[in-house]
Amino acid sequence: MEVDICLSPALYPYYKKENDIVIVVDIFRASTTICAMLSNGASSVIPVASIEEAKQYKSKGYIVGGERNAKKLEFADFGNSPFDYKKDIVNNNDIVFTTTNGTQAINAAAGCKTLFIGAFSNIDILSRECFTLGRGRIVVLCAGWKNKINAEDTLFAGAFTEKLSKLGEITYGSDSVRIAIEMWDKAKNDPIEFLKTSEHYKRLINNGAEGDIAYCFKENSTPIVPYYCATENKLRIE
Amino acid sequence: MEVDICLSPALYPYYKKENDIVIVVDIFRASTTICAMLSNGASSVIPVASIEEAKQYKSKGYIVGGERNAKKLEFADFGNSPFDYKKDIVNNNDIVFTTTNGTQAINAAAGCKTLFIGAFSNIDILSRECFTLGRGRIVVLCAGWKNKINAEDTLFAGAFTEKLSKLGEITYGSDSVRIAIEMWDKAKNDPIEFLKTSEHYKRLINNGAEGDIAYCFKENSTPIVPYYCATENKLRIE
Repeated sequence: MEVDICLSPALYPYYKKENDIVIVVDIFRASTTICAMLSNGASSVIPVASIEEAKQYKSKGYIVGGERNAKKLEFADFGNSPFDYKKDIVNNNDIVFTTTNGTQAINAAAGCKTLFIGAFSNIDILSRECFTLGRGRIVVLCAGWKNKINAEDTLFAGAFTEKLSKLGEITYGSDSVRIAIEMWDKAKNDPIEFLKTSEHYKRLINNGAEGDIAYCFKENSTPIVPYYCATENKLRIE
Repeated sequence: MEVDICLSPALYPYYKKENDIVIVVDIFRASTTICAMLSNGASSVIPVASIEEAKQYKSKGYIVGGERNAKKLEFADFGNSPFDYKKDIVNNNDIVFTTTNGTQAINAAAGCKTLFIGAFSNIDILSRECFTLGRGRIVVLCAGWKNKINAEDTLFAGAFTEKLSKLGEITYGSDSVRIAIEMWDKAKNDPIEFLKTSEHYKRLINNGAEGDIAYCFKENSTPIVPYYCATENKLRIE
């Protein structure tokens, strides 16, 4: 099975091929939070790229999660912390969600054949699911930060590739795979310590989201596989 | 001094700021070859992005270096090997040059305030020159491979940042700097061995350019600082 890694949504046009399985990743925090929402019983997550669109949903009565630059949007019900979306809030509801990077990355890859949401919180079940599907390439699409490359998504891409390599034979689609694997190899003994000099770590600390960091690196706390249904523009689990 | 690293020309719009010093890098092989041309006495190198434009120069009598996908273009006088451009050929001539990635990266950054060409062959003098200028940010722009990220340019970016850090205090503009430094740290004891699984290494081997690889990783063989003059569209040394 071929694995490739695209370290920024702006690079996706150069990495994409037909029939790819695309894993959208935004460790801090959108992809982790989407897993938390669906794991806590949300019917679906509706990812929207623009603030305007999120406001329209809000006026129709939807629960809206909205974040820009690590801060909750004023009009939104909640921000981008996985802890915001507790069972009693999300259960059986469609949650509209717009974030700085993650929902933009979903948007960039929305035309692909199969789109899954990846996070440390679903890393094992997702890697098994990719192997079970057993067709096409797997492309990890890192949301990054405003199209710049970030450390935490790169680390996940390396960790996920390592998981895949334990399930069967994989080949590397490009040098980015090697880069992510080497990074993960350097960081895996203590990824949070490794990230302390990274941009987004500091941004989360400065915005009082310190508690989210450990959660976002904890493996397998939400063993579900969120997939994107393009005809409905909804993320769901089976 | 702030240092940032842009790992693909397609990401440059997200990294660029006014007054940046941009170092364009295409280790295999355009930036290394440009240094060889100018070090061997070429009056200038005229970087052109399209094959059509290079053909027009050829019809006017210019010496043309042309490469796509690691192969010499048929109509061109020479390809993209630094060994092609010997003193008796290039001396006092303007050389027109078009390559798969390197000349495209120059094109992408052509509007910046200061553009230098970087390679292992001029790494020390170039890092000193950047510190001497002592203003603005330094952005290493990696040419990559058709806008995908590659290992060898990432390694140079890490090595160059390490050189800068030995000359004075530097800060990191984004997580890409950390990524490049970690990669270089892993590879620096034997970068060529490290690269043996990389895409472009294999491409060069398959195209009989094995001899270029060691040259492209040798430090300080051409201690010159090529800069881009936008009004003339020429690369020169002082």
